[in-house]
Amino acid sequence: MTFRDLHHGDRPLVLPNAWDVPSALAFLDAGFEAIGTTSFGVASGLGRADGGRSTGDANLFLARSLSRLPCHVSVDIEDGYADEPDRVAGYVAALAAFDVAGINIEDSTGGRLVPPRAHAAKVAAIKERCPGVFVNARVDTYWLGQEATVAETLARAARYAEAGADGVFVPGAAEPDVLRELAGSIPVPLNVLVIPGLPVAELGRLGVRRVSTGSLPYRAAIGAAVEAADAARAGRAVPAAPPYAEMQARLLRYEKN
Amino acid sequence: MTFRDLHHGDRPLVLPNAWDVPSALAFLDAGFEAIGTTSFGVASGLGRADGGRSTGDANLFLARSLSRLPCHVSVDIEDGYADEPDRVAGYVAALAAFDVAGINIEDSTGGRLVPPRAHAAKVAAIKERCPGVFVNARVDTYWLGQEATVAETLARAARYAEAGADGVFVPGAAEPDVLRELAGSIPVPLNVLVIPGLPVAELGRLGVRRVSTGSLPYRAAIGAAVEAADAARAGRAVPAAPPYAEMQARLLRYEKN
Repeated sequence: MTFRDLHHGDRPLVLPNAWDVPSALAFLDAGFEAIGTTSFGVASGLGRADGGRSTGDANLFLARSLSRLPCHVSVDIEDGYADEPDRVAGYVAALAAFDVAGINIEDSTGGRLVPPRAHAAKVAAIKERCPGVFVNARVDTYWLGQEATVAETLARAARYAEAGADGVFVPGAAEPDVLRELAGSIPVPLNVLVIPGLPVAELGRLGVRRVSTGSLPYRAAIGAAVEAADAARAGRAVPAAPPYAEMQARLLRYEKN
Repeated sequence: MTFRDLHHGDRPLVLPNAWDVPSALAFLDAGFEAIGTTSFGVASGLGRADGGRSTGDANLFLARSLSRLPCHVSVDIEDGYADEPDRVAGYVAALAAFDVAGINIEDSTGGRLVPPRAHAAKVAAIKERCPGVFVNARVDTYWLGQEATVAETLARAARYAEAGADGVFVPGAAEPDVLRELAGSIPVPLNVLVIPGLPVAELGRLGVRRVSTGSLPYRAAIGAAVEAADAARAGRAVPAAPPYAEMQARLLRYEKN
């Protein structure tokens, strides 16, 4: 099934977001057919805060590494690391050379929404240069809490879809009524984050086509590492974890690919 | 307190093993005064299997990054990445330039024990060049299951201590009687891995001075990431995780250091 097809199945596509090769290998072994990346996780691994355009080189390297895996990969490229549409399209062309199936690009820079026409121009430039790449245009109205209305979100989504976006991602939108209205009015598949209390099946009934974990697995990972060390220090039972031999075998297989 | 002093407190030093900046930041925020690294985690992050001498450059970079943190850092350098004692000592000198408090060096290469005199020569070369670095000499008899006897382990430990090792690490040794005998006979602090069913206080009573988590937190992290994604896919409640804002704030503070 193509990455695009996965947006039109019986239930929403659940996309786990990896930050490096071993997290992607683990998701793959758990049966996920498509894997996203988390720019927060990638930036964090570099010792950098999220959203600072620090992940461009690391994502190219990650895309190259993940291209050896038998799964679709969609890369979170923040705002495309540039204001100029041509430069953004050039970056995506480099990713496309590593066979990425899709990218996520957000309509905010440095925590502020950019004008919708500026973001639409990036989307259009990417689609002109890389028509086969699934462009998921992220609308940050709810994420940033700025102009977080259905009307503003729909206006932005419509411009991005007109510019060629293949999907629209609205992280932070979490009210069922809002999700239903967004899904019903946006002409391309709607992607949201995992929402506690709203299982994927319920999101599917509201019209959502794709559910991203975002940084949740990455944050859960860091939390679990601290919990394991703290349990050891406190003399509590240490938590279960995948065995060393299993993870080592996975890396040996990857090295041979 | 110096890193050395931490091996002589009321209870064993519990050393959590980080694999990158954010895992180290998380351990630091959890109150750990000293942090080790895990060569398995570092290799895994590079998409490489453990024990293949792949982590030399990454550990230099990691040591440089962690030198900005207010804690003692001990770096796991596999077998020192070379057979020649001078080359190993040169590598440790580079780490010492980044203020590392200690290193761990193992007496096996490619899954096979090396002759004890060869390992002792590495230890001696490191201590001659970097006398201030706490050298934790790892005895892999139990870890590899080769010559896993108390006698062989003590013979190796004695040579390494004579060569100047500041501590001896015996991963895989887990029987209370064995640990008591090792601790009683090795003239420098004994380090073991976390052992399920033997809390740190009990290990302290057996004479153990340092307890490393090894790759457990790293493996727990990867396991938790998969669990979070799987819960989302299956419609189960997603696990708790450190909030995005908390982790982002930590990275912003680190960037300013």
